[in-house]
Amino acid sequence: MSEAKTPRNVHLKIVKEKHKQLPAIMKEAAIDCWVIFTRETAQISEPVMDIVVGGDIVWHSAFVFSNIKGQFKKTAIVGNYDVNAEKDKEIWDEVLGYKEGISALLKGYIEKLDSKNIALNYDIDDVSADGLTYGMYLTLVKILGEKKELFTSAAPIIQKLRGRKSETEIELVTKACLLTKDIYKRIGAQVKVGMNEAEIQKMFHDEMNKLGIIESWQRNSCPSVDAGPDKEIGHSGPQPTIKVQKGQTLHYDFGVKLHGYCSDIQRMYFFGAEKDIPDELIHAFDTVYKAITLSAEFIKPGVKGHEVDKIARNHVISRGYEEYGHALGHQVGRQAHDGGTLLGPLWERYGNIPKGVVEENMIFTLELNVKTKNYGYVSLEEDIVITKDGCRFLIPRQEKFIIID
Amino acid sequence: MSEAKTPRNVHLKIVKEKHKQLPAIMKEAAIDCWVIFTRETAQISEPVMDIVVGGDIVWHSAFVFSNIKGQFKKTAIVGNYDVNAEKDKEIWDEVLGYKEGISALLKGYIEKLDSKNIALNYDIDDVSADGLTYGMYLTLVKILGEKKELFTSAAPIIQKLRGRKSETEIELVTKACLLTKDIYKRIGAQVKVGMNEAEIQKMFHDEMNKLGIIESWQRNSCPSVDAGPDKEIGHSGPQPTIKVQKGQTLHYDFGVKLHGYCSDIQRMYFFGAEKDIPDELIHAFDTVYKAITLSAEFIKPGVKGHEVDKIARNHVISRGYEEYGHALGHQVGRQAHDGGTLLGPLWERYGNIPKGVVEENMIFTLELNVKTKNYGYVSLEEDIVITKDGCRFLIPRQEKFIIID
Repeated sequence: MSEAKTPRNVHLKIVKEKHKQLPAIMKEAAIDCWVIFTRETAQISEPVMDIVVGGDIVWHSAFVFSNIKGQFKKTAIVGNYDVNAEKDKEIWDEVLGYKEGISALLKGYIEKLDSKNIALNYDIDDVSADGLTYGMYLTLVKILGEKKELFTSAAPIIQKLRGRKSETEIELVTKACLLTKDIYKRIGAQVKVGMNEAEIQKMFHDEMNKLGIIESWQRNSCPSVDAGPDKEIGHSGPQPTIKVQKGQTLHYDFGVKLHGYCSDIQRMYFFGAEKDIPDELIHAFDTVYKAITLSAEFIKPGVKGHEVDKIARNHVISRGYEEYGHALGHQVGRQAHDGGTLLGPLWERYGNIPKGVVEENMIFTLELNVKTKNYGYVSLEEDIVITKDGCRFLIPRQEKFIIID
Repeated sequence: MSEAKTPRNVHLKIVKEKHKQLPAIMKEAAIDCWVIFTRETAQISEPVMDIVVGGDIVWHSAFVFSNIKGQFKKTAIVGNYDVNAEKDKEIWDEVLGYKEGISALLKGYIEKLDSKNIALNYDIDDVSADGLTYGMYLTLVKILGEKKELFTSAAPIIQKLRGRKSETEIELVTKACLLTKDIYKRIGAQVKVGMNEAEIQKMFHDEMNKLGIIESWQRNSCPSVDAGPDKEIGHSGPQPTIKVQKGQTLHYDFGVKLHGYCSDIQRMYFFGAEKDIPDELIHAFDTVYKAITLSAEFIKPGVKGHEVDKIARNHVISRGYEEYGHALGHQVGRQAHDGGTLLGPLWERYGNIPKGVVEENMIFTLELNVKTKNYGYVSLEEDIVITKDGCRFLIPRQEKFIIID
């Protein structure tokens, strides 16, 4: 429902920008036919719909992009009730409708295309390229069984398409970051020693309601609010029993969604005078800060995700801390966790995505935490966009503990 | 994000009610192990999560329900960061966490269970039972390859579980219907000849914002607003160029969502004096009304979906109209189109779901339209719950054109 308030013209502008990227991306990926096959997207979301179709469909639908003999073509094959809606968007070369079933129409269309391969939305590692359900895959096998050996994963297309942010996409994520900064500033002025985590979270939600914007991820942990030393990371949301204490830290992980595009930013506060910040906390903050600096200095188009993670991870270990239990950075876009190349370690659960290559106009988080002995975790997160030869922070980064005295 | 404002205790109450239904349903379905295998559910929704897990997860997760030798057991296998959140819900017999990857833990757990079958969430016909993506299926084959011949569709479980509404679920859908009726009443008093469809839709959205509730389906067609005779059904939303006319009809299709549960109700208005309603419209209204009456009198536990549709469809044809181009009724619950048994014709695109059996406590729409020669469509939709030996309308049905003079 996050699309509810996205103006239609903004959404279609983004879809058109993404369609423009497609011919080159399909060529790079050596794929000449891409089929998005889906149904009832209000119930099971197909993550690619928002960027190449723009809106939900009800009946079985196939969106076919082909790039054969230099001819790029975009066709929507949808139920009769959806035909006018697709035509009105003015993004398709052709819109075909059916009444009782899609099989004959889709089969005929694909046979006529005679493509070298047929890319479908499935991938073991990348959730954003895995929108084809197993039941829908079995349906496709029934319809296009003779062409089954041409099936291949569309992940190489989807990852480039989602990853290489268009002008409008970068603009929207940047605006979401600025709104986040703004809300942090408003809340910062109100939080006091003795308040509990749950009531602080409510202040964030009230600010968002006032501004009419929604959270980047599920509301009960957006923001996460972690006060003081006793909070175990990943606990189920802010606790009414845990309070802000003098001489201790406060940590937020928070983001907002603007017209479907997210921010994801962590900030750390200290309650007390600057001179009273314990050395232990300063050492931890400097470590996290420097790890982000080093990885930001290293990252540029062409490096691999796990190479960037390694820079930060090694720094943390070299400073005597346990390594953080997650990836250094994920892409940000329509989702706070936007899929594709990950700045992560080569762990089983990350599969191949940390081996992905960093490209210009991708947007990543740089985030990590270290655990101190007596003061809990110190954790920061910044959002960066990859430039031609490096990266740029989307908003000014956190340079030191924000002091609330 | 529709869950955003559902109180956690309400959500968990429903999950607990659904868990209670499970042992009997698994027995009926002759399935002794059900595995929900999913990841990043904020990005690709797994429709079953809301009713049996309650909330999103990030890493690869398996929720295993087993019913072996009279022993019903519920286990959550999740990434370390999600362990506490699952434990806090107090709905699992066991919560297991992993750091780097789920494979070894899941494989060991399933091998030890030694079940006769392993039900997974895929289905050709029913979208609500098709939450396993093809990439995740391939992952499972990698992990549990030796047990692949035990894989079977969990649709028989999911359809019964979603279909048989619990007490709280029926209460919430009923409340959503009452809210819908309320909004219809408020809007009815404000709409006048000369207003256009787009501004009328906006009035609905304003009322919803005032009440702090959200729409049952995507906002640009919730409500759909169809004024006068020239509106082609299924067009992309209300048009600013089409206006309410004296002596013509106005039609809405509208529903709201309360704590995740939907309503879906159509209403018809006539602008003018009751005596001026053309015979053609009265004949059409009577036909639609009677078709709903006949199917409501026929429906009860044990009949098949397509048998109910046939009653209404035959009546429409016997009265000289073209048959409606959709199903007579779908289930309503967490989605306006909630999946499972459909009161629909045996058309290809509906697959086997119209062959499904109607059961007590299922909630259905009864809806159809007929096209008149000179006054456009007449279309009504009611929501019913199946009782022990028949059905009950959740709110009073529409008996005749609502007159606005």
